[in-house]
Amino acid sequence: MNTHTNNTNIQEIAIQLAKQAKNASKNLLKLHPNLKNQMLLNLADDIEKQQDVIIQQNEIDVKNASAKGMDKAFIDRLTLNMLRIKSMAEGVRQIAGLPDVVGEISDVKIRPNGMQIGKMRSPIGVIAIIYEARPNVTIDAAALCFKSGNTCILRGGSEAINTNKILGQILSKNIQVENAIQVLDIADRQMITELVQLRDYIDVVIPRGGKGLIERLMQESKIPMLKHLDGICHTYIDKDADIEMALKISFNAKCQRYGTCNTTETLIIHSHIAPDILPSLAKLYKTEKVELRCDKISYAILAKEQYEYLTAANHEDWTTEYLAPILSIKIVDNLDQAIEHINTFSSKHTDSIITQNHNNAMYFLKMVDSASVMVNASTRLADGFEYGLGAEIGISNDKLHVRGPVGLEGLTNQKYIVLGHGEIRE
Amino acid sequence: MNTHTNNTNIQEIAIQLAKQAKNASKNLLKLHPNLKNQMLLNLADDIEKQQDVIIQQNEIDVKNASAKGMDKAFIDRLTLNMLRIKSMAEGVRQIAGLPDVVGEISDVKIRPNGMQIGKMRSPIGVIAIIYEARPNVTIDAAALCFKSGNTCILRGGSEAINTNKILGQILSKNIQVENAIQVLDIADRQMITELVQLRDYIDVVIPRGGKGLIERLMQESKIPMLKHLDGICHTYIDKDADIEMALKISFNAKCQRYGTCNTTETLIIHSHIAPDILPSLAKLYKTEKVELRCDKISYAILAKEQYEYLTAANHEDWTTEYLAPILSIKIVDNLDQAIEHINTFSSKHTDSIITQNHNNAMYFLKMVDSASVMVNASTRLADGFEYGLGAEIGISNDKLHVRGPVGLEGLTNQKYIVLGHGEIRE
Repeated sequence: MNTHTNNTNIQEIAIQLAKQAKNASKNLLKLHPNLKNQMLLNLADDIEKQQDVIIQQNEIDVKNASAKGMDKAFIDRLTLNMLRIKSMAEGVRQIAGLPDVVGEISDVKIRPNGMQIGKMRSPIGVIAIIYEARPNVTIDAAALCFKSGNTCILRGGSEAINTNKILGQILSKNIQVENAIQVLDIADRQMITELVQLRDYIDVVIPRGGKGLIERLMQESKIPMLKHLDGICHTYIDKDADIEMALKISFNAKCQRYGTCNTTETLIIHSHIAPDILPSLAKLYKTEKVELRCDKISYAILAKEQYEYLTAANHEDWTTEYLAPILSIKIVDNLDQAIEHINTFSSKHTDSIITQNHNNAMYFLKMVDSASVMVNASTRLADGFEYGLGAEIGISNDKLHVRGPVGLEGLTNQKYIVLGHGEIRE
Repeated sequence: MNTHTNNTNIQEIAIQLAKQAKNASKNLLKLHPNLKNQMLLNLADDIEKQQDVIIQQNEIDVKNASAKGMDKAFIDRLTLNMLRIKSMAEGVRQIAGLPDVVGEISDVKIRPNGMQIGKMRSPIGVIAIIYEARPNVTIDAAALCFKSGNTCILRGGSEAINTNKILGQILSKNIQVENAIQVLDIADRQMITELVQLRDYIDVVIPRGGKGLIERLMQESKIPMLKHLDGICHTYIDKDADIEMALKISFNAKCQRYGTCNTTETLIIHSHIAPDILPSLAKLYKTEKVELRCDKISYAILAKEQYEYLTAANHEDWTTEYLAPILSIKIVDNLDQAIEHINTFSSKHTDSIITQNHNNAMYFLKMVDSASVMVNASTRLADGFEYGLGAEIGISNDKLHVRGPVGLEGLTNQKYIVLGHGEIRE
């Protein structure tokens, strides 16, 4: 009975929050771009000014999380220090400096009847962002949503609740549009379940976090999501690859950082080039003690080389995001086999071909169905900053709306506008 | 027990169909644009050549539907005659004539590290189209999906089963990519329920039909949809409207056709101009015996005019799609009130302002959150042909992906492509 009452309360609060967010939309849309940017710059300054208070609150969260036995990586993501606070503020300044996209008119064409038809970029509306205990996301997401004219409801991991509370206060103080940014300080998980039902008020849900969080939301949500579940990225070394380039990119794509979603997890190599390149690759990967999980052919080659960290790949390896110094290797006889493997096992995040052959490069670009498809570049380059979007609120592996890094444009849509002079339907 | 077995069978068939559609995708992507267009032209010719057989099968459906007591409008939508078959074929020829959008590269920019980043337009993948007993949709949807590189599963209303069967045969004969277009001939409604669960194979569901069909699919579907539930469109006559233009557009927007989703259902009038314009409007609407459901002020004005078909509006009128010679009328004191009314009650389909005032026009365009926002034009102009998209597979009132008429572009997405020269993440 108590739980029931509690859930009802939480449902009511969720509806209240969502209504407030929806009502705030129009006030946000009326703001002059300069004023929006000024508020963002004030926010950045204030974040730096209040760093002591922020760190104080963050220390409480860190202490509680440690007491709860959360692991090192978790604590690291939760922790704010002076450098990280400075970088949060810098991020906001960068977003303030990006061109405003709201109201942008494009593709205007004159129709035979005289009317002009074009597109105007608009905010999506109300965005709910559900994320883990990473307080920098609070500021990042708030700034991106605000700049793109969206109101947002931010629900970070409950372990960051004290940090998010103070950040929420700093946001309210500087972003002076009531309810434009609502940072939740209700730890109860039920709040998320309630929020993602409210499709009359919330237009899109953006989850950021581990696979567990996102899978659960996919089950619960009645609202469309922008999301990526995992990052199983491939690098394919074509027969006509430049060997030096292939070595450099393959090493970078795996070893530059292990825990990121754009890290290559499977290396595909053309059979003609495999005997030549695998020994050199092994030398590189050995420096990082990378475990190589190999199909039959690559296993045979590397066994001859007496590669220390060698394992036989099984079927599961093609569908595993290691997030670790482990790489699966697959040998193919032609480009089509490589593409077939990628389109079967890729998580549609980022896949790259290394080749000097123009036809193969263009064919790969066309046929690989992933959010980012690359030629002669490291999959690690797939992100908003590297692409010049300025900042990203997440990555989408889905096939509707926006694919890949979601920046300001991805947080908007385009409506049709018609400029007429009295035209009617004949 | 029987039902259970039956449902299991249907589920298996659905999975089989969806897998086939997914597998066919890559073959479709490899087709040369010229070859695609040639197949479409052959299809158009064949439709005309086989008109007698089509009409023969259609007559069976019409006879059965009449025997089942379906209403006149239903029978009309179901019926094919020589003229309609000719127009179906013409539609296919027009689609063949549209530019191919698959593989189109745009927005290529050079990044500081030297790599080029751009976008490439790709098919969404597998599209399931669920529609009512309107056989022309079968050909239209098949041609649009094929041209845009998508494989499709078409499930039309069971009352059109014989017509769709023969159309499916003509499609298979001319569109020579196995399983690129699968027209279902299973009448069981369970098939739809099964199909919309298969999010591993089907990328998007496009429902076309009445509100009941779409609401049911919204409940059932695990797959994103492109849809519009209804069309509650507004025309707002601003204080600074040109009276003649306002009369012409308001009459056209309501009376050019009643049963369409882009027909204006509510007329909003600025209070300054209402006493002047309402009597003239009433004269026009009287010729069509349009029932006017008026708020207090407009009621008072038209009562004085002794308008014959006058009713008092209640709250429900603002949320009703009449699809009939009925129009609700609301008086407002300023532009913001008009926008507020529209953003509250509009179905986000199409809304238009009639004004000579530039600031008001631009403000209306920015603030109204609908798929099509118009200045000085009839809402009846909101459709794919009028917008120059060539043809549309439907209309989306949603806020992600594409808004408004969905043509070839709406059936595609844009992936990022990176053209590198060995760039890595530093």
